[in-house]
Amino acid sequence: MAAYRAPVRDQQFVLHDVLDLAQYSNLPGFSDADRDTIDAILDESAKFCEGVLAPISKVGDVEGCTRDADGNVKTPTGWKEAFQQMSEAGWTALSSDPAYGGQGLPHVLNLAVNEMVSSANMAFGMYPGLTLGAAAALHTGGSDEQKELYLPKMISCQWGGTMNLTEPHCGTDLGLLRTKAVPQPDGSYKITGQKIWISSGEHDMAENIVHLVLARIEGAPEGVKGISLFVVPKFIPDADGNPGERNSLKCGGLEHKMGIHGNATCVMDYDDATGWLVGEENKGLKIMFIMMNEARLGVGLQGYALAEAAYQQSVDFAKDRLQGRSLTGPKNANGPADPIIVHPDVRRMLMDQKAFVEGARCFALWTALHGDLEEKSDDAAAREKGGDYMALLTPIVKSYLTGKGYDMVSNGLQVHGGSGFTEEWGASQLLRDARITLIYEGTNGVQALDLVGRKLAMNGMRPITSFFNELDAFVAEGGDESVKPFIEAVAETKGKLKEGTDWLMNNALENFDHAGAASHDYLNLFGLTCLTYMWAVMAKTSAAKIAAGDSDPFYKTKLATGRYFLDRWVPEADMHLAKVQAGADTMMALDAEAF
Amino acid sequence: MAAYRAPVRDQQFVLHDVLDLAQYSNLPGFSDADRDTIDAILDESAKFCEGVLAPISKVGDVEGCTRDADGNVKTPTGWKEAFQQMSEAGWTALSSDPAYGGQGLPHVLNLAVNEMVSSANMAFGMYPGLTLGAAAALHTGGSDEQKELYLPKMISCQWGGTMNLTEPHCGTDLGLLRTKAVPQPDGSYKITGQKIWISSGEHDMAENIVHLVLARIEGAPEGVKGISLFVVPKFIPDADGNPGERNSLKCGGLEHKMGIHGNATCVMDYDDATGWLVGEENKGLKIMFIMMNEARLGVGLQGYALAEAAYQQSVDFAKDRLQGRSLTGPKNANGPADPIIVHPDVRRMLMDQKAFVEGARCFALWTALHGDLEEKSDDAAAREKGGDYMALLTPIVKSYLTGKGYDMVSNGLQVHGGSGFTEEWGASQLLRDARITLIYEGTNGVQALDLVGRKLAMNGMRPITSFFNELDAFVAEGGDESVKPFIEAVAETKGKLKEGTDWLMNNALENFDHAGAASHDYLNLFGLTCLTYMWAVMAKTSAAKIAAGDSDPFYKTKLATGRYFLDRWVPEADMHLAKVQAGADTMMALDAEAF
Repeated sequence: MAAYRAPVRDQQFVLHDVLDLAQYSNLPGFSDADRDTIDAILDESAKFCEGVLAPISKVGDVEGCTRDADGNVKTPTGWKEAFQQMSEAGWTALSSDPAYGGQGLPHVLNLAVNEMVSSANMAFGMYPGLTLGAAAALHTGGSDEQKELYLPKMISCQWGGTMNLTEPHCGTDLGLLRTKAVPQPDGSYKITGQKIWISSGEHDMAENIVHLVLARIEGAPEGVKGISLFVVPKFIPDADGNPGERNSLKCGGLEHKMGIHGNATCVMDYDDATGWLVGEENKGLKIMFIMMNEARLGVGLQGYALAEAAYQQSVDFAKDRLQGRSLTGPKNANGPADPIIVHPDVRRMLMDQKAFVEGARCFALWTALHGDLEEKSDDAAAREKGGDYMALLTPIVKSYLTGKGYDMVSNGLQVHGGSGFTEEWGASQLLRDARITLIYEGTNGVQALDLVGRKLAMNGMRPITSFFNELDAFVAEGGDESVKPFIEAVAETKGKLKEGTDWLMNNALENFDHAGAASHDYLNLFGLTCLTYMWAVMAKTSAAKIAAGDSDPFYKTKLATGRYFLDRWVPEADMHLAKVQAGADTMMALDAEAF
Repeated sequence: MAAYRAPVRDQQFVLHDVLDLAQYSNLPGFSDADRDTIDAILDESAKFCEGVLAPISKVGDVEGCTRDADGNVKTPTGWKEAFQQMSEAGWTALSSDPAYGGQGLPHVLNLAVNEMVSSANMAFGMYPGLTLGAAAALHTGGSDEQKELYLPKMISCQWGGTMNLTEPHCGTDLGLLRTKAVPQPDGSYKITGQKIWISSGEHDMAENIVHLVLARIEGAPEGVKGISLFVVPKFIPDADGNPGERNSLKCGGLEHKMGIHGNATCVMDYDDATGWLVGEENKGLKIMFIMMNEARLGVGLQGYALAEAAYQQSVDFAKDRLQGRSLTGPKNANGPADPIIVHPDVRRMLMDQKAFVEGARCFALWTALHGDLEEKSDDAAAREKGGDYMALLTPIVKSYLTGKGYDMVSNGLQVHGGSGFTEEWGASQLLRDARITLIYEGTNGVQALDLVGRKLAMNGMRPITSFFNELDAFVAEGGDESVKPFIEAVAETKGKLKEGTDWLMNNALENFDHAGAASHDYLNLFGLTCLTYMWAVMAKTSAAKIAAGDSDPFYKTKLATGRYFLDRWVPEADMHLAKVQAGADTMMALDAEAF
């Protein structure tokens, strides 16, 4: 199995050359993130992920988590130590609020670090990931007292955190949830119910676990309007804020899953557990969605992070494995055969992975930067645009990067031939792990519906109009010969996305099923347009470097990879548009009995 | 987990209505396969696959195979009994030569039965599958004495059979193989070497296992021109043809694989094992390729058979799972929510599966019929065309049906949401099992190269010219209003496939890398064209039934499913053509070091 190498050079390219983070040095957080600091953080994080997290990924897959009769969960060998090391080094606190012990650095930098964590060991990364997501929800919706009590220990990952939404009969449709909360005289609540598929729900790595639980207060309205959010710690903090009395909740079972074995996916049983309301009664979903949105970006990141890991594995294999001869004459004449990287169809799979991962990385970081600008920019228009883009692009980051990311992981396995199907080389683990990313934090189909049903029409179509304007301005600006084909591709995909958008506007209102029927391909067309734009921006940046005399071969490789993207990815736009415009008629023609 | 139901009605439609097998009743084998006989075989096979094979599929996944210190392999609980039942009922002998105890029925009928076996329990089906493949190779290449000794017991699956090609350093590139054969004075050979990834290599279900082994006779030429085929039985038959002395070969280890756990994938160690030459010295590959070609059709069949199983699972789940409300108003107003089959994006996944599986089934059976006609037709032109089609279409059946089949299995899992990722519902097992079909019997990339590198130019392009002529004649024949869109789609996809073919003819000779670079998309364009043609033929058949007053709703559903295929699959043709025509330049632009 190949060792993971963090793609620091490519991240530097995106952060420094493409996004030019230095331009924001007047903003809070960014001022502490000058070029040297960023590079030092990337280098140190690379060392940690390569040296500590990647080597314990396979043991996580093989051992998985185990649960004893009392509901205690043991994580794989070495994970507890790595978790403590991660916590002590401060890796989990990078972009959290300094008021609660965070370092207040930009989210965009944190995302780059998280990419490395996910590539090195996705199942492990979910423990701090869920913890920081829960902290973000508490940060937004919790009282000052709750924040002071929980946030410092969660941000440092001294304590873990989870989100509890799903119940056996309700996943996507949260309106059906039944977990009950009964008010107590002291202001707390007694929480009773069963939650399932709770990632990181119980484990032995942190001294406490803070569960955020959706439940219905007795007498609350039915449906989504009667759902409240509660903080329900495993150990109830004592007067000093240390873990005190054991709460009456426990892990009732572990799911047997096809992947991410190292992460404990728990059935959580709450039996008159003590919890405290977070935010207002019946307004729990709103706060939980803050956590969900952050988590969705994180899942999109996992999508391309696993593709990066698969790319590295398959490149190593393709350079090493000798089999057959190049169609254009031997390339390794003194060996028994050529390395399989000489074969065009192997190249196709490697180039597809490379072109996708680099485009996706730029797209994810660019989106995350908009989240920072929404929060921190001193320019009201940039804050508005940042919020608009985060809303519009989150479902696309989540679904496009996981859907295509999974296909790319499958390409990586395919490069290995029969070896890929065995559990020896790591390719199969990546495939099994990656499969969940298309499902959790809202299935990719639900994301597509969120895009066409909510995000497009939002604020009088302001977000997508703003996005189209940005692309039009980029096209109008033009570029030199080497950049022209990229600009034409932006114009082409943008034009098709506009056509698809117009089709939705003209047809979905008369029959809502048209929106649902078009949603998957519309989202994919949108994702392709975003990646085409990213490639154009990266090409322009690279061409400028070359024109300015920079002789780093990195820039030439970037342009060549981008040209492959134009040849082999952009042709998918037509297909998606045709499927968008096909509408719902043939899709919904059959009665359920005809299936 | 949903119970498997054999799709007998759809198979009858293809065999009786579309292919009209009755028209061949003058041919050997077909005369014994009248409509009633076919229906009785399908019904009985359905009972066996539903009642015996499907229920032991999951235990195979969970238990897998185990090997003791002596190299003996134990198959999962209940598998040995099922194997004996299958053998005794004669299921394995359906289309084998009556001279050796077979029933001599058409291959096309055997394929329909094998589809059921693969859907019900793919890993199990590989034991008889490999045995019959080895028997076919012996039937073609073996001496009369070898045939009499081995075939009756292999055809009945009293004895098992395997194919031994791969070695640790050579899979696709068989010219590198090192296993040695040393001639003995008695005419036998001593075989020494290690073979890996030997499916069904060792097990406890049959009293003997007949290994067909590729090896190099001492002093033979290097490369593929020095490879001979040997029959190497586990127990050397005694004078009465019963298992005698134990041969010096054993299973040296079992592979840990991501799927098909119930099938023993063995490292096979041959240590001066006694074997006998099959056919001529140094001509072993030719015979092995007979087995390989048969096996490739069988793998294509697995591709759509698993998609059928996934389709059934996901339909059951989608009808049962209540979550959310239809976009066009409640469809289950008295329940807490609607079944998810009301949601267009769920429909999309189900319709994709249904449209694929039915098209693929027709394509596989139509191709298999050409194999029968090649062998048995009394018309020389039909025999020639049968052979041409088998050669041309085998790589397409193998790769297109497994590539798309895998995507459809993934769709089936996705319909399950989080449940699909757990090991409880069977969706994940199907996905893990299906992944091998893109790899074994020659990776899908190797199939694509076989298509563009060998099959297209074969016999002065006679096969593809014959295929194009058949499609042109079909288009020229026309049809009524309901069939017209299908005929137009045949004309359209055929036109694009012709364009792609012309591009290859004009460009691949000047740079062979263009052939490799185009191969994957060319094969997919070809597969899409074949399925479009199949759907047009099925539509025409169904329309004729309706016009003749047949009120079975089956035909209306068939037409509706076909219209979905036109809307949602045919638009992929343009994309594939664009990628074919993109050529090798950007694909091969980077030096290996740039990866």
